[in-house]
Amino acid sequence: MIERIAILGTGLLGTSVGLALRAAGFRGSIVGWNRSVEGGQTALQRGAVDALAADPIEAAREAEVTVLAVPIYATLDLMEQLPLHLGGDHLVTDVGSTKAKITQAGMAHFNQMACASFLPGHPMAGKERGGASLADADLFRGAVWLFTDVPGCVRSKRALELITGWRELVVAMGSKILDLDPTRHDELVAWVSHLPQFVATALSALLQDEVGDAPELRDIGGRALREMTRLGASPYSMWRDIALTNTEAVQATLFALEQRLAHLRENLRTPGLRDEFEQANQFRRE
Amino acid sequence: MIERIAILGTGLLGTSVGLALRAAGFRGSIVGWNRSVEGGQTALQRGAVDALAADPIEAAREAEVTVLAVPIYATLDLMEQLPLHLGGDHLVTDVGSTKAKITQAGMAHFNQMACASFLPGHPMAGKERGGASLADADLFRGAVWLFTDVPGCVRSKRALELITGWRELVVAMGSKILDLDPTRHDELVAWVSHLPQFVATALSALLQDEVGDAPELRDIGGRALREMTRLGASPYSMWRDIALTNTEAVQATLFALEQRLAHLRENLRTPGLRDEFEQANQFRRE
Repeated sequence: MIERIAILGTGLLGTSVGLALRAAGFRGSIVGWNRSVEGGQTALQRGAVDALAADPIEAAREAEVTVLAVPIYATLDLMEQLPLHLGGDHLVTDVGSTKAKITQAGMAHFNQMACASFLPGHPMAGKERGGASLADADLFRGAVWLFTDVPGCVRSKRALELITGWRELVVAMGSKILDLDPTRHDELVAWVSHLPQFVATALSALLQDEVGDAPELRDIGGRALREMTRLGASPYSMWRDIALTNTEAVQATLFALEQRLAHLRENLRTPGLRDEFEQANQFRRE
Repeated sequence: MIERIAILGTGLLGTSVGLALRAAGFRGSIVGWNRSVEGGQTALQRGAVDALAADPIEAAREAEVTVLAVPIYATLDLMEQLPLHLGGDHLVTDVGSTKAKITQAGMAHFNQMACASFLPGHPMAGKERGGASLADADLFRGAVWLFTDVPGCVRSKRALELITGWRELVVAMGSKILDLDPTRHDELVAWVSHLPQFVATALSALLQDEVGDAPELRDIGGRALREMTRLGASPYSMWRDIALTNTEAVQATLFALEQRLAHLRENLRTPGLRDEFEQANQFRRE
């Protein structure tokens, strides 16, 4: 049903999409574009794309489905340019980590009469380091792939077919689809994805101050410490756009955790500590 | 050099010590005692101990080296009783997670003329759930085993030999030994062990309030969330004594993290966020 896919941005996610499509049996063409030539070459060498395009607009024009797999602000930039060059039978989708601003841009620039369609997407998968060389055909296996499409879109019959086709490919890549309202999406991922990241960053930064100059002391922490700080390796470049496009929701979760830690601190010697452990145990029960 | 060991408390740690001693080639006798008969039976069935004793004092009297592997307050209780029944050629050691109070009790009740010797120990190894059935011969492999012995101990030649012998067995079990001052130990483990646990507990408890009633939303978080909340499964019973015997050091770490999270929250849209990520990245660099 879909024969030509363009992947704009062949970092960890874009390259993994290409590899996962091939692993799922997709036989059409996959053209890649990447801002830096090096990342594109790695994706090509790994077989995630069949060919590299010199220009993202040109790659999207020739494809039926274009997957935006660049950082959020780069996605928003491309979403302003692409509609000028695409028609009603083109589908554009993305993999960005926040969805309110992107879905809003989709309604402003796409999804109107004779316009390309935009389907906002977000696979809940990633690694603490990026790049095509870490891409993985199984990255999306068992993950949830969120879509935040909203009512009021005007779409051609072909665009609707492409949306159905893309959703089928997402399932074929091993993901479970969940449809959410974009604002609800951003609040929810603030809790289950952004908060854990920012906690790991704050904890790692604090420990760097306290024990960073003595690696032998750092090693004492063992598995528990390694696990709680693994995400501390995540680069700023991957999280800056998330912090900028979901600021209020993230602030609310951080403030709530600060209060929770203060409560625990004040109850280290009271039965309140038991309550906190029991509440936490509940979260980890099947 | 050591031929008879008693393990008092055959939970996760005690049973793992028995299994690890056998895996390391220790051929002497290992007698176990456990408050609940069930945990003792599991340790016996798994081959961690050769026999079970009905009475902890009796087991310690017959052994050259006694390993206390019960919770901290139970350790402190046994440390009051045992010296009345042991002599200068007996060595008692422990695996408790805080060391200032235990080392202090060691100086008060042991380490004097014609008294048993006490060597305060703490293997940095564990699991988020306890019990003999989860014990593992490899639990201490690659871990750091801390000792917090202090100057001023009066010990027999035989006790000194047994200390050397126990340290050799710890290395044979795969651990790396590090000697620390007990107060420094408690401050350090507050940072690298207790803080990560209490953060995971607070984060898990908070998320249970926010998304606990919707498991499909909880699953969205994927590996990062699972990892950051795994320790949320730790039982209160394992952490109560730690909170009670290392309160001030843990409070200081929690307060520092609260401030760090507030700083991050106030800088989500400023270059301060970059600084935090870079500082965190440093901690994760080899």
